[in-house]
Amino acid sequence: MKLTFLGTGDVRQVPVFGCNCRACNTARQNPALRRRPCSALLTTPYGKLLLDGGIIDLAERFQPGELSAILLTHYHVDHVQGLFHLRWGIGEKIPVYGPEDTQGCADLTKHPGILDFQAPLKPFKPFYLGELKITPVPLIHSKPTLGYLFESEQRQLAYLTDTVGLPEATTTFLQRHTELEIIIDCSEPPQPNPPRNHNDLNSVLHIHQTLQPKALWLTHLNHKMDEWLLDNDLPEGIYVARDGLEI
Amino acid sequence: MKLTFLGTGDVRQVPVFGCNCRACNTARQNPALRRRPCSALLTTPYGKLLLDGGIIDLAERFQPGELSAILLTHYHVDHVQGLFHLRWGIGEKIPVYGPEDTQGCADLTKHPGILDFQAPLKPFKPFYLGELKITPVPLIHSKPTLGYLFESEQRQLAYLTDTVGLPEATTTFLQRHTELEIIIDCSEPPQPNPPRNHNDLNSVLHIHQTLQPKALWLTHLNHKMDEWLLDNDLPEGIYVARDGLEI
Ligand SMILES: [Mn+2]
Ligand SMILES: [Mn+2]
Ligand SMILES: [Mn+2]
Ligand SMILES: [Mn+2]
Ligand SMILES: [Zn+2]
Ligand SMILES: [Zn+2]
Repeated sequence: MKLTFLGTGDVRQVPVFGCNCRACNTARQNPALRRRPCSALLTTPYGKLLLDGGIIDLAERFQPGELSAILLTHYHVDHVQGLFHLRWGIGEKIPVYGPEDTQGCADLTKHPGILDFQAPLKPFKPFYLGELKITPVPLIHSKPTLGYLFESEQRQLAYLTDTVGLPEATTTFLQRHTELEIIIDCSEPPQPNPPRNHNDLNSVLHIHQTLQPKALWLTHLNHKMDEWLLDNDLPEGIYVARDGLEI
Repeated sequence: MKLTFLGTGDVRQVPVFGCNCRACNTARQNPALRRRPCSALLTTPYGKLLLDGGIIDLAERFQPGELSAILLTHYHVDHVQGLFHLRWGIGEKIPVYGPEDTQGCADLTKHPGILDFQAPLKPFKPFYLGELKITPVPLIHSKPTLGYLFESEQRQLAYLTDTVGLPEATTTFLQRHTELEIIIDCSEPPQPNPPRNHNDLNSVLHIHQTLQPKALWLTHLNHKMDEWLLDNDLPEGIYVARDGLEI
């Protein structure tokens, strides 16, 4: 099981339109430092799973039939916008899993095209794609949002975005796993108070201490977090994701 | 006054994901034949006006401050999706004009960021941007939709998409203009019956005969219309738009 970060930016992406901070200017000069909408590809023996659909050139990145399934964390535009085009494709349907959200996003579920929206997932109710065990876990965000724990024989990978902190039940559930590797929303550099809908680095450090994962990767970064990283180091075992990084 | 077509495709764009028709295969081999979401840029002495915001890399195409205004025909995703990212930019606000539509698209008007949504436009009530006279005209579509007549001293340019046919009041209004150049929705090749929400070529030919414009350009084409064009010619005075074409 391999995870490839397709996008690691927050809703504004990096660079931010019109911003001349050091991080945005650097990303403008070096496309490798850009951050696209937060999304990842999980390559498993069962097939390729797309985690969130906010990347807008999905039709160019993937061949028809290449994606075995799409898993959505939630229906904010930056996590589903690439699906508005993909849905009008021709051929095999793509199963799409996600949380219960009667609002969804614009007319996405009303006109699904080749997207085959499955019954909403239930928190902590695991399901299998091939041998891969997937458990949806509730997160704390401004829209109904699920993280996912992916368990193969080799790895326990938790994908946790968008969120600010973790619900107690999610913490308790994840604490039972001793081989955890975590990918988590870290939208903001350390703040005096935790932000409203996303983790700052302080919130992430707290989660890191509580769950003691084998490794933890930061994703969903905004330009201020990138700017902070120009001047600061992270504690051991915590890494910054980059668009294109494979783990 | 110059109009640049930024995108000339329908909601599915060309090529369509997974389609192997002749038009889609040709477009895949030759990027100059691709069709992005329907949008145009009007360059005027007053400044640059963006017509619809469905192009997804607006933040890369335009510099901060470069767009004087954005005019929306309607709030379907393929006409506004690029604004979901642009709105989170920094700096000068961009005035956005469009039809009355209480639904809008997802949370676009709720969280406008640097987009400065103006009071909804009234059909046939002209307004001015500098010397440029702009008259919104009602169209016939599955969402409230406005076309626009742009009048400078030199030109009378009507931008009419998305629509199937034209309301009688719009026809009567446009017939009073003798120097008309028309850009119009032609999503489909000739059909036995007119489609539901978009023109086929037969509907366009009918409008052409009624309004007798100096010239007429087809936009919002789907892959089947492109395929039809591989084998057929258009009557005199009717032209096919292309992404990047300037008129
Ligand atoms: Mn997000
Ligand atoms: Mn979100
Ligand atoms: Mn359209
Ligand atoms: Mn439309
Ligand atoms: Zn910045
Ligand atoms: Zn095709």
